[in-house]
Amino acid sequence: MRNIKLTLEYQGTRYHGWQRQKNAPSIQGHLEQAIKKVTGKKSTVFGAGRTDAGVHARAQVANFKTSSKLSSDVLLRAINAHLPKDIVVKEAEEVGRDFNARKDAHGKVYSYSIYDGPARPALLRDFVYCSRHKLNERKMRQASRFFLGRHDFSAFRTTGSSTKTSVRVIRHINVKRRGNRLTITVEGSGFLYNMVRSLVGTLIEVGRGKIEPGKVKEILDSKDRSLAGPTAPPWGLFLEKVLY
Amino acid sequence: MRNIKLTLEYQGTRYHGWQRQKNAPSIQGHLEQAIKKVTGKKSTVFGAGRTDAGVHARAQVANFKTSSKLSSDVLLRAINAHLPKDIVVKEAEEVGRDFNARKDAHGKVYSYSIYDGPARPALLRDFVYCSRHKLNERKMRQASRFFLGRHDFSAFRTTGSSTKTSVRVIRHINVKRRGNRLTITVEGSGFLYNMVRSLVGTLIEVGRGKIEPGKVKEILDSKDRSLAGPTAPPWGLFLEKVLY
Repeated sequence: MRNIKLTLEYQGTRYHGWQRQKNAPSIQGHLEQAIKKVTGKKSTVFGAGRTDAGVHARAQVANFKTSSKLSSDVLLRAINAHLPKDIVVKEAEEVGRDFNARKDAHGKVYSYSIYDGPARPALLRDFVYCSRHKLNERKMRQASRFFLGRHDFSAFRTTGSSTKTSVRVIRHINVKRRGNRLTITVEGSGFLYNMVRSLVGTLIEVGRGKIEPGKVKEILDSKDRSLAGPTAPPWGLFLEKVLY
Repeated sequence: MRNIKLTLEYQGTRYHGWQRQKNAPSIQGHLEQAIKKVTGKKSTVFGAGRTDAGVHARAQVANFKTSSKLSSDVLLRAINAHLPKDIVVKEAEEVGRDFNARKDAHGKVYSYSIYDGPARPALLRDFVYCSRHKLNERKMRQASRFFLGRHDFSAFRTTGSSTKTSVRVIRHINVKRRGNRLTITVEGSGFLYNMVRSLVGTLIEVGRGKIEPGKVKEILDSKDRSLAGPTAPPWGLFLEKVLY
């Protein structure tokens, strides 16, 4: 069996997230259908990150095993021909049989876009979270620094999710403004469920002046989800890159 | 009667263009409906440029007369509340009674985006024209310079359109590449029907190597539409700015 690595771009708006579901359209489901049409056989596609409903990806990575003899270039074009317009395979390459998109990832980069202009944006409406309050990006940047490094991020995960440890490493975090648009970019070893959106939701509270930047360190140390800000909505979030 | 100037952003994908039509959704039609709901009276909205079906705007300008006493800020918010998500009023201000968005414009800036990467884009699909051929932006830039200045643009208009003169002035034209994305920006005194899309269609032929850059001057001088390239599709085009 050959092992094919895919790099994917998609707009999450119309989908119930990455993960295959019975009666709801998903990215994984569409990909598996397309692959079956091309190779004639069912393959499971393993994604590096399970993006939620409404979350987008600029370069999600996935892999699947196939006995098809089609070259990876032909596979790319044929799979794309069977995918809807808002999902596309950007790259396809044959990799070693042991490569696993999820387990081999040693980091991920996400970005989150916020628009805080006076009128809602018509062109970017599916790609930015609209804040009715003008945000102070200097304060947000100051607060974001407390997330850097190795921490127990229990205060920034959706309760109910269960993984062995809630310790994660954040390597870079960046808050940038261009006009009315703020982009928060974060690179980490891995992320807990809803962790990026919880970090962003808290930074938004800081930007509005509801939480002081210094308070963020206390929230992190408390490991108490109820002290952090709300989970920011999915449509501002992009999986930008998976690191191997 | 007060005269209100509006600055508008919209995604043209779902509309049959700016102009009001009987049985098809249009930007002007939606605006006039929204204004009627807010002011209680019918107003005609005059747009600076009649964008075609599928064409977008970052800052279209329009004006309408009203006897409403609502402040322009309240008008902005109220009109937006009655507009679909892909149309928004970014600014509203009261202007002198003689201001006419179309007649007073002394120039317009358009941009056209082309994507020439190996796989179609999923995120930008409604905002870029996808070229299957890699384009040579250096040649396109070289060719674009022949359009600068005052010329009879008969070779770059849709036949059948009738205006007094086909002489127009192009003040700036710029071809920029960022990765797989090319953006052509053009500023002119005014444009003939389909002129920007004809210029772009011709530059694409140059980028593909089907027309030599120097040939573009000959095409311009010939005033013969059949010698120029095809009209580029609407979805790559943005009305960026109207100059007063």
